[in-house]
Amino acid sequence: MNVRLIFKILGYILVVEAGALLLPLALALYCGEAAWLSFVLVAALCAVLGFSLTRLHPGRRYMMQGRDGYLSVAVAWLGLSVFGALPYVISGAIPHYVDALFETISGLTTTGATILTDIESLPRSVLFWRAETQWMGGMGVLVMFLALMPRLGDGAVHLMRAESPGPIKSKLVPKVGQTAKILYGIYMGLTLGETVALRVAGMSWYEALTHAFTTLATGGFSVRNASIAAYESNAVVWIITVFTFLAGANFALMYAALRGQWRQVLRSEELRLYVLLLVAAVGLVWLDLSVRAGVPAGQGFTDASFQVVTIMTTTGYSTRDFALWPTLSRMILTALMFVGACAGSTAGGIKVSRLLIHIKTLRRDLGRVIHPRHLSVITMDGEVVDEGVVASCHSFLVAYLLVLVAGTLVVSFDNLGFEASLTASMTCIGNVGPALGVLGPTGNFSILSIASKLVLALEMLMGRLELLPILVLLNPATWRDR
Amino acid sequence: MNVRLIFKILGYILVVEAGALLLPLALALYCGEAAWLSFVLVAALCAVLGFSLTRLHPGRRYMMQGRDGYLSVAVAWLGLSVFGALPYVISGAIPHYVDALFETISGLTTTGATILTDIESLPRSVLFWRAETQWMGGMGVLVMFLALMPRLGDGAVHLMRAESPGPIKSKLVPKVGQTAKILYGIYMGLTLGETVALRVAGMSWYEALTHAFTTLATGGFSVRNASIAAYESNAVVWIITVFTFLAGANFALMYAALRGQWRQVLRSEELRLYVLLLVAAVGLVWLDLSVRAGVPAGQGFTDASFQVVTIMTTTGYSTRDFALWPTLSRMILTALMFVGACAGSTAGGIKVSRLLIHIKTLRRDLGRVIHPRHLSVITMDGEVVDEGVVASCHSFLVAYLLVLVAGTLVVSFDNLGFEASLTASMTCIGNVGPALGVLGPTGNFSILSIASKLVLALEMLMGRLELLPILVLLNPATWRDR
Repeated sequence: MNVRLIFKILGYILVVEAGALLLPLALALYCGEAAWLSFVLVAALCAVLGFSLTRLHPGRRYMMQGRDGYLSVAVAWLGLSVFGALPYVISGAIPHYVDALFETISGLTTTGATILTDIESLPRSVLFWRAETQWMGGMGVLVMFLALMPRLGDGAVHLMRAESPGPIKSKLVPKVGQTAKILYGIYMGLTLGETVALRVAGMSWYEALTHAFTTLATGGFSVRNASIAAYESNAVVWIITVFTFLAGANFALMYAALRGQWRQVLRSEELRLYVLLLVAAVGLVWLDLSVRAGVPAGQGFTDASFQVVTIMTTTGYSTRDFALWPTLSRMILTALMFVGACAGSTAGGIKVSRLLIHIKTLRRDLGRVIHPRHLSVITMDGEVVDEGVVASCHSFLVAYLLVLVAGTLVVSFDNLGFEASLTASMTCIGNVGPALGVLGPTGNFSILSIASKLVLALEMLMGRLELLPILVLLNPATWRDR
Repeated sequence: MNVRLIFKILGYILVVEAGALLLPLALALYCGEAAWLSFVLVAALCAVLGFSLTRLHPGRRYMMQGRDGYLSVAVAWLGLSVFGALPYVISGAIPHYVDALFETISGLTTTGATILTDIESLPRSVLFWRAETQWMGGMGVLVMFLALMPRLGDGAVHLMRAESPGPIKSKLVPKVGQTAKILYGIYMGLTLGETVALRVAGMSWYEALTHAFTTLATGGFSVRNASIAAYESNAVVWIITVFTFLAGANFALMYAALRGQWRQVLRSEELRLYVLLLVAAVGLVWLDLSVRAGVPAGQGFTDASFQVVTIMTTTGYSTRDFALWPTLSRMILTALMFVGACAGSTAGGIKVSRLLIHIKTLRRDLGRVIHPRHLSVITMDGEVVDEGVVASCHSFLVAYLLVLVAGTLVVSFDNLGFEASLTASMTCIGNVGPALGVLGPTGNFSILSIASKLVLALEMLMGRLELLPILVLLNPATWRDR
């Protein structure tokens, strides 16, 4: 284990965070908000501490094993969270540190679950920081660092692998730094596109930019108490639906599309299943809303499309209180929270590609009953999937379920009901945001005990980093055996 | 595919069913109940049809591939269910055939979910048949057939493998017929023991025998409306708790215990985890009942022990309306429904041994992050688990989850609430019995739509036969490729 290297990387990441804090600082100064001081203080703290840590000299410079990659990512994300929570407390926006930590982790992991009861009462600069944490966490802070400073050599692959979601990790171009730049380029382009579209649809620049931040990150924080329902505009709803859908798709496919390789895009099995599941879910929710709740067809279609897309992409905005929807609709939304969207996107959940690999493995096993001696490989988009990847998908499912159940049991002790407790754990590990029951879109997470808040925050980190970094960090064997 | 052989086996099984119908027939005649006629008619029908089918001459006599074994078991269980439902309809006890089929499948699969609203209004002979279906299904009808007529040669292994629960199938002794006899011997001994114990504790012989039937089968049907609460006797509660616990343990271990091989029993990893989970669950439910519901310590311990054991062993009796218990208790019971008890028992769920293999696989994968080139095998009780078994455990988990979710979505359309819909699917695939919400121990399944009843019945069969036989039956590839 290369502890110095891990802390050196933490140092760089804190410098990135210090830089990120300059944006809300500028906004606070522009709007004349007293919160400017908290941003100055925390930015200075991050910068000083960060620069000091970057002076560390790792013995075997930049030599990194797989374990070090996971640990670096885990430590970096914990560091970002711990310091990122400070502006909320210092500015007085969120008095209790545990609440501030919950909100920060919910932001960075693009979950979007909130402990705030009156969002609109907070200073604009604080809400901007809240939205910005989601944007940073969406594509990944280490990916940003690799885009800015691509001189980590082989170690970069380990970092990128540990932070990017999905079972199969591929570089778009041979160089990791270049790949990171392309990803952030697409990410920024889409953010800009949505900001302009929302401005045209009637939002202010401030609202348009913060919502674009939290849409593209599939985060779901809004600067309005009523979330997207506050705008009462079908244009806004559909603009967000479209950009949320894109944010849940694989960014590598968008790069292919930009280069005109439409064939590759259209034959992507994951994209097809993603669209198929969305269409099926919208259809069933639409039917359920019309049969069981008497919602008119046109409104039902808009509501179903918006909520299904926002939940499956693990964004978590709301235009309706779907905690009051009939059973089937709630159950479909819960199932979508579990699955999530595509690998290589900013979404959470187990990812559609893992679901696909699970289904293919099952089909292979059923086939073996008929032809016991038949050997077959699993393919994805025409390419053979390594059996190691198949096995790790299964371990991932097991770990995901175990964490989900453990989190549910902790939250259950707060006695807020079956549906709220289960979906709270589901929404946090899946980085969605709202749960159901009393923790639905009109409720909020402030009513939970401190233990529940901390466990749910841990689940968010586990979900965002796809379990391994945090499990490696928590595994005693990692520390026993240096 | 050897279709003739599959139907020949169905013939034998129907003859066994005809024989089984003689017991309630005798009781009906003894009690002077009009239902005797329905038992005579159905027994005659099964006997005639069964004997005719046994006259079939399979081309390659008794040659059986794995696929044929699964199909034989699936067809035999469907046949048993279809004919076993007839006495309910003919006697007028259950007017609608779908309801009767649901009740029969719930019996044979040892689920114990019921559509009856007033159990005690039914003739004793009908309730006896209801309890007897559970006893038959508990150890397995094909296992009984193998014990009675052990002349199927190699095919017998395939049949036993397809009907017995658990990831690793082992014969107790080299001969399958002998193994089947030993299993039924232990099963009968325990049934007899519990009958006597319950008689001593104050039940009538009739009540003692029917409850012993449904305890040892981990079925959970009771002849009383209030289930075990009707007896208001701590002795009855604890006798049933002990025998339910035994019924959820591996019968192969009981055979080892009977031969004095206590060391083998005590080092069984599955048994240890089974006991550990039970103790932890009882402790947490006890705590939850006392903190959140103010239940006195003594009563809380009895209630927690009884309900945790009856749910984890997938029996499903009740002494309390646990649908009204606080959230954590309900969540723990739901998690236990999913896990179930030990392989080689009469219980449902995914089985403790599969959970153990999942945990070990996960631990191995985490270890690989630290030592990437380290090759390691998974062991159980000191013996290496074949990688094929590990892979099939994972496919099993995936299939189980997919069926669970699909069933939940169908039931959800009845709009009976989130908790009731999810746990209805969970309780049926896990062969438990009661669900939560409006389908809890005081509710019943008669309020569901026909579609939901049929889907839940299919889930029960899938759960009891551990998915593969039914999946092979439903897989188009099985039929395409003869």
